[in-house]
Amino acid sequence: MQKPQNRPFKVLESEYLSHEPWFTVRRERVQTPSGVVIPAWYIFEFPDWVNVIALTREGEFVMISQYRHALGDTRFELVAGVVEQGESPLEAAQRELLEESGYGGGEWRAFMTTSPNPANHTNRVYTFLAVGVEPIAEQQPEPSEDIRVHLMSREQVEELLSEDEIMQCLHSAPLWRYMAENPL
Amino acid sequence: MQKPQNRPFKVLESEYLSHEPWFTVRRERVQTPSGVVIPAWYIFEFPDWVNVIALTREGEFVMISQYRHALGDTRFELVAGVVEQGESPLEAAQRELLEESGYGGGEWRAFMTTSPNPANHTNRVYTFLAVGVEPIAEQQPEPSEDIRVHLMSREQVEELLSEDEIMQCLHSAPLWRYMAENPL
Repeated sequence: MQKPQNRPFKVLESEYLSHEPWFTVRRERVQTPSGVVIPAWYIFEFPDWVNVIALTREGEFVMISQYRHALGDTRFELVAGVVEQGESPLEAAQRELLEESGYGGGEWRAFMTTSPNPANHTNRVYTFLAVGVEPIAEQQPEPSEDIRVHLMSREQVEELLSEDEIMQCLHSAPLWRYMAENPL
Repeated sequence: MQKPQNRPFKVLESEYLSHEPWFTVRRERVQTPSGVVIPAWYIFEFPDWVNVIALTREGEFVMISQYRHALGDTRFELVAGVVEQGESPLEAAQRELLEESGYGGGEWRAFMTTSPNPANHTNRVYTFLAVGVEPIAEQQPEPSEDIRVHLMSREQVEELLSEDEIMQCLHSAPLWRYMAENPL
């Protein structure tokens, strides 16, 4: 399938509204190829994010649960985090798995690259698949993090996905991909 | 799998920074259950969104391509949009399919509910599966929208997914779910 021809906006004005962590925002006045002016297009700048589908030697999924404030709910998710300055996405994913779950080792490979929302998020999300991880340390979450680790069978993960209980689409997309590519 | 116990933050202060369309933002000072104070948690309020996996009678996928400004690129996507005031998600999805592609009819069912990011987005995304749609009108996009329609075979969609060409995770999550639940 051929990539679609790019039909970009013309940027007429661009202004930063904020430069805070988790809140770096640009507002742009843009013009579409057909000449329509959109007075305010908001762009959220984030560093790249990572997450990891980690499977133990016994084939269990290393999942976590964490409170998610915008929904006011605690949900099952993949281990995930931010690519820090100077890190590669792989290094960030390995660090996050160790910090959030205490698991490490295993064979790692790049699995999927997604965008949280290409309309208004500048960053990409890199998912890794880690096979054969094992507990190698204590969990070391940030002081502000409240993360529980849950080892799950494939059937349990598939049931949670089917019931929309793993709601975060940055996590359900790679998990559904894994299920599609590795049918039982 | 039992739902994890909810472990919410306590909200110490809450302030709206903006009330614009596509930019309604709250900043909150919150306290974790362990007592750590996080001085600024940003919450983006959006209306609910919808998207649709639409299949023609011949089994082709009704896909679109559209310029996405934060990535500066034009990508393949599902038909998608915003649930307007007074609409149900189903009505919004049927309206968006007609406006963006000119397709309608068929059998519709709720397929999946996701969150763009439960940490900082308040809204949900409802995906519908519409089977047996057909061209019933001219495309009627908004003046600011520049949308091309692409009819694709299942193999073409799966190839784009595999190559991370459908990057928007709100769209790749339901498409991968469809592939997992409807193996060839």
